[in-house]
Amino acid sequence: MKTFSEEVTLEGHIIDSWTLPRAFDAIMDMGGTFDVEEIQVGRAKDQPSFAKLKVHAENEHKLENILLALQALGATLASRDDAAYKPAPDFYSTTHLPTQVRLGARWVDVQNTEMDLVILVNPETGEARMVPSAAVRKGELVVVGHEGIRIIPPQRPRNREIFSFMGSNVSSEHPKRLVIEEIAREMREIRARGGKVLIVAGPAIVHSGAGPLLARLIREGYVQVLFGGNAICTHDVESVLLGTSLGVALHSGQPVPGGHRNHMAAINTIRAQGSLRKAVENGVLKEGIMYECIKNNIELVLAGSVRDDGPMPDVITDVQQAQLKMRAALQGVEMALMIATMLHSIATGNMLKASVKVVAVDINPAVVTKLADRGTFQALGLVTDAELFVRELANALAALEEKEAKQPAKAGKS
Amino acid sequence: MKTFSEEVTLEGHIIDSWTLPRAFDAIMDMGGTFDVEEIQVGRAKDQPSFAKLKVHAENEHKLENILLALQALGATLASRDDAAYKPAPDFYSTTHLPTQVRLGARWVDVQNTEMDLVILVNPETGEARMVPSAAVRKGELVVVGHEGIRIIPPQRPRNREIFSFMGSNVSSEHPKRLVIEEIAREMREIRARGGKVLIVAGPAIVHSGAGPLLARLIREGYVQVLFGGNAICTHDVESVLLGTSLGVALHSGQPVPGGHRNHMAAINTIRAQGSLRKAVENGVLKEGIMYECIKNNIELVLAGSVRDDGPMPDVITDVQQAQLKMRAALQGVEMALMIATMLHSIATGNMLKASVKVVAVDINPAVVTKLADRGTFQALGLVTDAELFVRELANALAALEEKEAKQPAKAGKS
Amino acid sequence: MKTFSEEVTLEGHIIDSWTLPRAFDAIMDMGGTFDVEEIQVGRAKDQPSFAKLKVHAENEHKLENILLALQALGATLASRDDAAYKPAPDFYSTTHLPTQVRLGARWVDVQNTEMDLVILVNPETGEARMVPSAAVRKGELVVVGHEGIRIIPPQRPRNREIFSFMGSNVSSEHPKRLVIEEIAREMREIRARGGKVLIVAGPAIVHSGAGPLLARLIREGYVQVLFGGNAICTHDVESVLLGTSLGVALHSGQPVPGGHRNHMAAINTIRAQGSLRKAVENGVLKEGIMYECIKNNIELVLAGSVRDDGPMPDVITDVQQAQLKMRAALQGVEMALMIATMLHSIATGNMLKASVKVVAVDINPAVVTKLADRGTFQALGLVTDAELFVRELANALAALEEKEAKQPAKAGKS
Amino acid sequence: MKTFSEEVTLEGHIIDSWTLPRAFDAIMDMGGTFDVEEIQVGRAKDQPSFAKLKVHAENEHKLENILLALQALGATLASRDDAAYKPAPDFYSTTHLPTQVRLGARWVDVQNTEMDLVILVNPETGEARMVPSAAVRKGELVVVGHEGIRIIPPQRPRNREIFSFMGSNVSSEHPKRLVIEEIAREMREIRARGGKVLIVAGPAIVHSGAGPLLARLIREGYVQVLFGGNAICTHDVESVLLGTSLGVALHSGQPVPGGHRNHMAAINTIRAQGSLRKAVENGVLKEGIMYECIKNNIELVLAGSVRDDGPMPDVITDVQQAQLKMRAALQGVEMALMIATMLHSIATGNMLKASVKVVAVDINPAVVTKLADRGTFQALGLVTDAELFVRELANALAALEEKEAKQPAKAGKS
Repeated sequence: MKTFSEEVTLEGHIIDSWTLPRAFDAIMDMGGTFDVEEIQVGRAKDQPSFAKLKVHAENEHKLENILLALQALGATLASRDDAAYKPAPDFYSTTHLPTQVRLGARWVDVQNTEMDLVILVNPETGEARMVPSAAVRKGELVVVGHEGIRIIPPQRPRNREIFSFMGSNVSSEHPKRLVIEEIAREMREIRARGGKVLIVAGPAIVHSGAGPLLARLIREGYVQVLFGGNAICTHDVESVLLGTSLGVALHSGQPVPGGHRNHMAAINTIRAQGSLRKAVENGVLKEGIMYECIKNNIELVLAGSVRDDGPMPDVITDVQQAQLKMRAALQGVEMALMIATMLHSIATGNMLKASVKVVAVDINPAVVTKLADRGTFQALGLVTDAELFVRELANALAALEEKEAKQPAKAGKS
Repeated sequence: MKTFSEEVTLEGHIIDSWTLPRAFDAIMDMGGTFDVEEIQVGRAKDQPSFAKLKVHAENEHKLENILLALQALGATLASRDDAAYKPAPDFYSTTHLPTQVRLGARWVDVQNTEMDLVILVNPETGEARMVPSAAVRKGELVVVGHEGIRIIPPQRPRNREIFSFMGSNVSSEHPKRLVIEEIAREMREIRARGGKVLIVAGPAIVHSGAGPLLARLIREGYVQVLFGGNAICTHDVESVLLGTSLGVALHSGQPVPGGHRNHMAAINTIRAQGSLRKAVENGVLKEGIMYECIKNNIELVLAGSVRDDGPMPDVITDVQQAQLKMRAALQGVEMALMIATMLHSIATGNMLKASVKVVAVDINPAVVTKLADRGTFQALGLVTDAELFVRELANALAALEEKEAKQPAKAGKS
Repeated sequence: MKTFSEEVTLEGHIIDSWTLPRAFDAIMDMGGTFDVEEIQVGRAKDQPSFAKLKVHAENEHKLENILLALQALGATLASRDDAAYKPAPDFYSTTHLPTQVRLGARWVDVQNTEMDLVILVNPETGEARMVPSAAVRKGELVVVGHEGIRIIPPQRPRNREIFSFMGSNVSSEHPKRLVIEEIAREMREIRARGGKVLIVAGPAIVHSGAGPLLARLIREGYVQVLFGGNAICTHDVESVLLGTSLGVALHSGQPVPGGHRNHMAAINTIRAQGSLRKAVENGVLKEGIMYECIKNNIELVLAGSVRDDGPMPDVITDVQQAQLKMRAALQGVEMALMIATMLHSIATGNMLKASVKVVAVDINPAVVTKLADRGTFQALGLVTDAELFVRELANALAALEEKEAKQPAKAGKS
Repeated sequence: MKTFSEEVTLEGHIIDSWTLPRAFDAIMDMGGTFDVEEIQVGRAKDQPSFAKLKVHAENEHKLENILLALQALGATLASRDDAAYKPAPDFYSTTHLPTQVRLGARWVDVQNTEMDLVILVNPETGEARMVPSAAVRKGELVVVGHEGIRIIPPQRPRNREIFSFMGSNVSSEHPKRLVIEEIAREMREIRARGGKVLIVAGPAIVHSGAGPLLARLIREGYVQVLFGGNAICTHDVESVLLGTSLGVALHSGQPVPGGHRNHMAAINTIRAQGSLRKAVENGVLKEGIMYECIKNNIELVLAGSVRDDGPMPDVITDVQQAQLKMRAALQGVEMALMIATMLHSIATGNMLKASVKVVAVDINPAVVTKLADRGTFQALGLVTDAELFVRELANALAALEEKEAKQPAKAGKS
């Protein structure tokens, strides 16, 4: 039987990081076979390995699919052609891993890494970037096929840091205090070096009484970007202006008479001002999460949804507009905390490149699994309560602060 | 101590439908007191009761809040003034129950019943309708305060129909087959009398392989309105064009090589056609849920969300636009089945008046509780699997059909 | 049509506590009808009401069932006969509410209130108590039928304390800090007056690192009775002896090499000692939850289950034996905290009389609903994380302690 | 620095089945290092591979732990000594994988494979078997240390059968119909060859109305062993004798007046008979799950729990007794379906050897994950509804039966 073949090479920590067995799996799962033409396994743990495989499949379509799968694992085709591109609809679809394309016999880093996008190239400037396929304009050149594309898969970190629990989220039965302390330490380091932390915040944070704690984290410089929806904005403003969240008094936990109208009152108050910024400038809004975002020039993106009341004037009601703003705000983000909001967290997760550290917090284990299952070694899921998580995180940050205050000489990482 | 007082009356099945004890509760919970000035309890179960209460509170604000709460229970103020209205921001906020306003000494039904809206009145024509506060234009007259408003609370039905399990959803431990048969019976009756059934459909229906069953229900005339998002549309088209859902082959349950690109291929195919309707007309889309909606002129509203890929051209990306379309499509709907989609179900639930029968199906009990907890006797929650629910419903409808075919003389309710 | 009738009376806060509408519901739901022969509604909130109903049913069996249901609501039959009793199998089945039987024309309190038991009477001594039907010995006299039985239903408390949220559990979206503070306050009051608090403790408390906090609560006198199983005992001992819980190091959250053998090592160590008490006396076990229970003479009942490894020598492997011990230990308990253990919590809930304040904590909302749904105004459910709950509770208790230390003059309730 | 070293070899599909990278991981995670002394990777997929590693650690304790971990992956120590054994407390703790011990220079299969047990050896007869450590009697010889033990790890099956989705359970979003068909096919094959299927059955099966379907499966010979507790037994008998389950009528889904006493009546009826078998013999119990178990001589083990009412006379109230009976009944079981009962399913899972095919069905994803996460390629989790699962399974079996009836020539696997 005639078969179609291609040679591929894999380099690096391909056994240690489980790349080689995954490659074997992929080939066989997709109906192909292979010969191992060459293999060198590093004798010690810090030596890279190398493998050259010859992959066979019964038809060209199967072979192509196998090569695509191997590519996502970091394999390079032996035939080192440039990437192909044309102004065409059959796109190469990206992963969230660092990616290079070969243009003019040179490997070029692709900008704006994000899943399920297409790669636009400019052969003249030698530049490449990822964009949503809907954003491709007529005449722009898009990478097609799979030649000349190289993906750099994540290497499993050897030091035992909390983000290396790939795939496995921290269940409700593990000691979360330790994990939260580690997150706090990471946040302090990012702040110290001027990096960016994103919080995707659900309304339960306010509703459960943890709003002032999140506001404090923003004020203290631990948060640079905040994503949310109409609900967290409305709840926050309601809590600041009227002391309630969905009509429940935050100082007592009891519903307030007539309180079900409070969220509409909060919305109408801000609508009358025109925007959150104006409400802050005019002294109408004097504290809270939204106030701190405005005051501290946090990048704030409030994305609307079809279940919104009102909405607040700052909420972007067109979801494609909102996606554009979110994408722009994600530049430079190193860590993303997603707390108790499935919709906005999934939206954000879709846009995050693999190197961003992700912490997903929700009381529903199914949500946490969905968010933390990113195929990287940088995601961490916590099945827990939003209120108590934020409280513990604030405590952990304060404890670190205090500890460092006592050791003025030692800067940076404790 | 000086107190502020007001007389209110309650009529109807006020003990049987728990209205009177709720009123007592409300007054005392909100810090008021009361005297029962008159009470007549119907001697038998079909005789209405009547109560006149004098309500006291220590200040006018408290009294007002109490009266507002009593009004939501159907109480009428003894002082029978007309409703007050002005072109003003401090609105009366509506419930989802049938509501009347007093205009020109006449009780007028308010149109477009929906929660958390405001009431627009036209004193000249004597008309009143509910609109979102954001939709009020300058100069329009809006009801303020609480005088001249009458709410007709639900009476608990005495016959033991499935929708009378107020509040309590059907857990995973109850016999669902019986409940599903009852829903099927109801759907057949609505179809028989030319009524409208809405299905709010989540993508899991397609993903779990139940798409063809839902398509069949539409084709057979059991569904008149369909709400969903980009995901169900994309999954459905992907399954029809490529046999997969998110890259998983529906005939085998196995991932297809390269299948993760299929959903973008499905979107791009329809985008190239311009719309679902054109794809159907041009013979590109030949079956499935979307196909049946187009072919059978079902009212289809696809509301976008910030987590969407693409999106499909028929998806409304502005969420306020989407809300308007949904509101329009809800006119005349008698029954709403919400299956495995929290976002669109909550959005729909917010817009439904209390008299619509609601069935909420989800595998997550928290979602079912949220959706089915509508304060009416018309909501029913089922903690179960979307695929198996749709399959059982299709079976139950087919069984009823067969049964009736054998009894050609007997029309209507079996 | 011939009907069977009986006169019943209801007294007390029957409208305010929703007793009367529930009685109407019950009669009609069970196919009966009624006439209201007399009704007096207290004019003000502190005046009791009174109703006399004539209940009709089409046959004696239906009437009997209706009367039984009314009795559970506190109704008294107009015909004031003594309770009937015989050495017989068709028992009256108890509720968890305070109950009286009429013996020798006198209303006698029934001891050992618990659900689903039978009532043993001794007409000579005029005593009555509840026992499991399996425990009835030949010749003992058991109450049958429904005459001469009076149940005292709970009155809804008017002051807004946290335990009055009947039925509705505190979801993950409510401010738990306030609720936890209230629980702490209650625990301090019970300790102050020498009362008893029961904790039903699941292994996640140890596994999540909160074991030392629970040990501290016991040491400080906040806990008088502790129920659990083999798992919490084993985890606690493993954590104390080896620093791990199921092989995971509690100081780092990382699995320890070979650690999966640690729980068997812990069990074997205690088995070699003979019992937990001997292990404490011999200096083998020097801290932890079990240690504190032994040292402080807490009533400790460890009930075995079929999934146990080992088990520990103190675990009662016969479940009926375990039930007897639990029943005995429950005497005098005023408050029960059930934390992250469904099996032992349900077992305990079945044995608790209605007047015990119940707090059910679990991350699974379905478990919380099951535990907190006790038909009383004394149950409170918290959907949250065991670790963070125990941590917050310990913090709240410490804060109250500190606060009171500053106000030495004011004793008791703050 | 002085290090301690040992040579180990790994053979078989060690790359394909991910054994080698797991071994590398284990060594480095536990603080060791290694040299790859020899490696041969099979050139094609059906050729086995071979690796010889030299493992280093800084002390003997670490080295020992590493060797233990490698052994669980199938590694053999180069030093081929016999297993060590003594009448001692520091046992080797077993896995649920096939295991051999070296006795008298011969590799001997260990009988009664089960997790967390100890290995008893008889050097004279050359036999070895696993027993719970609590069951070891004085003087018996128990394997200690890790020399002379060989574990045969599972090889990943290449044909794409449903049980090869290791670890990943089938979420509520996947097509379950296909999976259920596959389970049905497997059950027919086992029945055809006279094998054994175990069902671990929770009470929701009866409560949800699916009891008669399970009874049918037993009658038709699809079930050879049934495990459950007091609840399923009581519910089943109540449903047969009184038509209700926990007082809810199964024909209508409505609570029956006085029905809360029915489960005690069911228990008392069987207690009066003495046992289920006598109740069947005396014509008291004429159908249902328990009836079919008795009539068809199914191995039935009912294990008690501390939350039981009654209990039924056949319920084993001592949990260690119950474990012994379950262990005995598990001999020869090839497939285990665990449906909607966490307690009994975990107990069973602990006792099952790795080669048994496991299907775990529950509506709570956390339960399914816990049950299906067995580190084998033979476990399958379904997040779905018990009632609808049993119904679909019965349908699928009936459909296969019908299909085969039409093809009488073709026996065995369709």
